[in-house]
Amino acid sequence: MNHTESPTTSPWRLAARAAAMNPSAIREILKVTERPGILNFAGGLPSPETFPVEAMRAACATVLGEGSAIAKPALQYAASEGLPELRQWVAGEMAKQGATVSPDQVLITTGSQQGLDLVAKVLIDAGSPLLVETPTYLGALQAFTPMQPQVISVASDDEGVLPEALAAQLESGAEPPRFMYLLPNFQNPTGRTMPEARREAVLAVCRASAGGGLPIIEDNPYGELWFDQPPPAPLLARWPEGVIYLGSFSKILAPGLRLGYVIAPPALYPKLLQAKQAADLHTPGFNQRVVIEVLKGGFLDRHVPTIRALYKAQRDAMMAALGQHMAGLDVAWTQPQGGMFVWLRLPEGLNAQALLPKAVDAGMAFVPGTPFYAHQPDARTLRLSFVTSTAAQIDQGMAALARVIRAAAS
Amino acid sequence: MNHTESPTTSPWRLAARAAAMNPSAIREILKVTERPGILNFAGGLPSPETFPVEAMRAACATVLGEGSAIAKPALQYAASEGLPELRQWVAGEMAKQGATVSPDQVLITTGSQQGLDLVAKVLIDAGSPLLVETPTYLGALQAFTPMQPQVISVASDDEGVLPEALAAQLESGAEPPRFMYLLPNFQNPTGRTMPEARREAVLAVCRASAGGGLPIIEDNPYGELWFDQPPPAPLLARWPEGVIYLGSFSKILAPGLRLGYVIAPPALYPKLLQAKQAADLHTPGFNQRVVIEVLKGGFLDRHVPTIRALYKAQRDAMMAALGQHMAGLDVAWTQPQGGMFVWLRLPEGLNAQALLPKAVDAGMAFVPGTPFYAHQPDARTLRLSFVTSTAAQIDQGMAALARVIRAAAS
Repeated sequence: MNHTESPTTSPWRLAARAAAMNPSAIREILKVTERPGILNFAGGLPSPETFPVEAMRAACATVLGEGSAIAKPALQYAASEGLPELRQWVAGEMAKQGATVSPDQVLITTGSQQGLDLVAKVLIDAGSPLLVETPTYLGALQAFTPMQPQVISVASDDEGVLPEALAAQLESGAEPPRFMYLLPNFQNPTGRTMPEARREAVLAVCRASAGGGLPIIEDNPYGELWFDQPPPAPLLARWPEGVIYLGSFSKILAPGLRLGYVIAPPALYPKLLQAKQAADLHTPGFNQRVVIEVLKGGFLDRHVPTIRALYKAQRDAMMAALGQHMAGLDVAWTQPQGGMFVWLRLPEGLNAQALLPKAVDAGMAFVPGTPFYAHQPDARTLRLSFVTSTAAQIDQGMAALARVIRAAAS
Repeated sequence: MNHTESPTTSPWRLAARAAAMNPSAIREILKVTERPGILNFAGGLPSPETFPVEAMRAACATVLGEGSAIAKPALQYAASEGLPELRQWVAGEMAKQGATVSPDQVLITTGSQQGLDLVAKVLIDAGSPLLVETPTYLGALQAFTPMQPQVISVASDDEGVLPEALAAQLESGAEPPRFMYLLPNFQNPTGRTMPEARREAVLAVCRASAGGGLPIIEDNPYGELWFDQPPPAPLLARWPEGVIYLGSFSKILAPGLRLGYVIAPPALYPKLLQAKQAADLHTPGFNQRVVIEVLKGGFLDRHVPTIRALYKAQRDAMMAALGQHMAGLDVAWTQPQGGMFVWLRLPEGLNAQALLPKAVDAGMAFVPGTPFYAHQPDARTLRLSFVTSTAAQIDQGMAALARVIRAAAS
């Protein structure tokens, strides 16, 4: 041993995967946008107006009430799978969407972000190819990155991933991808939804792929937030053995609870469960008990429509404001049928990242689109959230954005 | 592409690390022991008597109360680092133990199990050597395993890891280990504690090791549960730049909250934070807010002494029962000065795993020691928890165990 090393040499050696881990670009950007008084369209937060404080308060009082038989069990260690009542509830909800799921296939996770982490651990070897949409959810890229995959972007349009581009990728790839990651409903960041025909076309390519097919990770945090009609049935309902489905309570109840779930084919479930156990033993039992109380009596059947109505009005305000203020500018944007986000493309020659400081100076903030691309970012794109601003703020914010674009484009 | 594959071929390919992941041996064992009416010394659960239901109820009512300014923030997304008040509280507690820690070094985790998972992700490459005690905490082995380390056991005695064995291992090893994992206080599974002199001797070997020293992961979930006097100062207080420290609220408040923390040297903190963000975005903010309320006014200064008194009486009952019923048998056991566990060694020729079904038939259950060894298990060992049984149950249970041992040994 070498005892002559300087005592100030760090004793720590990082794993190779740590080098690939980077601070969230969005996180750094959001710091810029938190200047007081800024009209903030950059966040990815649900509207706090939608949080069911009273129902939560009542549920906590029930769970922890005097004489409650579940007070101490709620505070004790719990099963890694999650509580049976909650797993049963998830299976029931999936049945409403046309997917036949046993509660034994449901794993309650610490937010659906943890579902992505568990999937990555169980399915990705260093160098494994996997496919994503263009653009895709940044948090998924962050969850997959530590397992050092080879991420491949598949060309996508306003209806999601392009079946012909997917087929071409599968023909050309040397090693079959481990999975394709898709967010079919009201996608983060674009707000787009895969229509029925696109779902069937993409699934046909996946099922026909070599070696039993190309499996799919279907992420659906926003599906319940539809405005006029529910989205088409989930991919899980169409190919149960080839889809791992991720769901979340963050957008229909509250993200601060960190409650999500994974639905996995029975053959994969035990490995995901073991990964869960190693990751945090179990999802907080207290939170699960409280949410089980909240869900009793069909609370969400009354609550979710109020979120839909609120977000729909905000979407309408956003569409009206964009239509009015962007008139005469070469700007395009998506028409979200649900969810929280609009995706906007700036006129040729502009760069969203470069425009952001000017927008902040003009009193509004957005997120540049670049971090949402695994490759070849379209630097003209940006994401706007419409759910945490009033109609008046949306109008004012889009007017400011239009002024900044006009100045930069001229 | 081959389109002729049978459609029933599974499309899923597991990562190599998934093959190394196995169901917890303890989990399978615990199922055997859950027969109704069994006196159960097998679990690793804290006593539910110690859960502060009233304080939790009041804290929930405050956080979610009408007009509460923190109700909606408690339900919204939160910072990945954890809430400032809780990080500040942790730093204050560490100061009482002689460790100077900035709140900026504190990362709030979803239980301290998650701390182990994050450490594994950031520090372990496939094949990386790392050192553990003999025996060691099973959950740590489970957290490290997915990152495919080469786990090396270092010989230990009733005072913990042996400095000479550690030095010999470091001399002989080709590649410097990434870290040594230690549980210095009232260890799970043995109940043993590293005395002051052993801490200094082990640290001297670690600090003198090549390349800046052998870093330490110090896991301390039980440290507050001392019976007569606090344990010696943590390793963190002695070598701040070489120790990552893991703490937990599970044994002093309630495990169902899943609240723990990691304290890391400033240079390592950003990587652990990025791993945390990718793993579950943040620890439930609701749980953090509730615990911040519980902690106000020095609640733990009143509450923890009641846990210590309860567990001490149970430890005394366990020692008395073992002394009485094991008389004349070649059985040895540890003398825990805190925590929840006693470690027992059966007479020569006996095997704890083989004895378990007989013990269950006789009305009591324990955990065989084998799963707690990374290598060369001592099959004569077993773990007994004394915190979830009354003195009468402890006496009855140890009498039953003694009968089973006597019958097997004769």
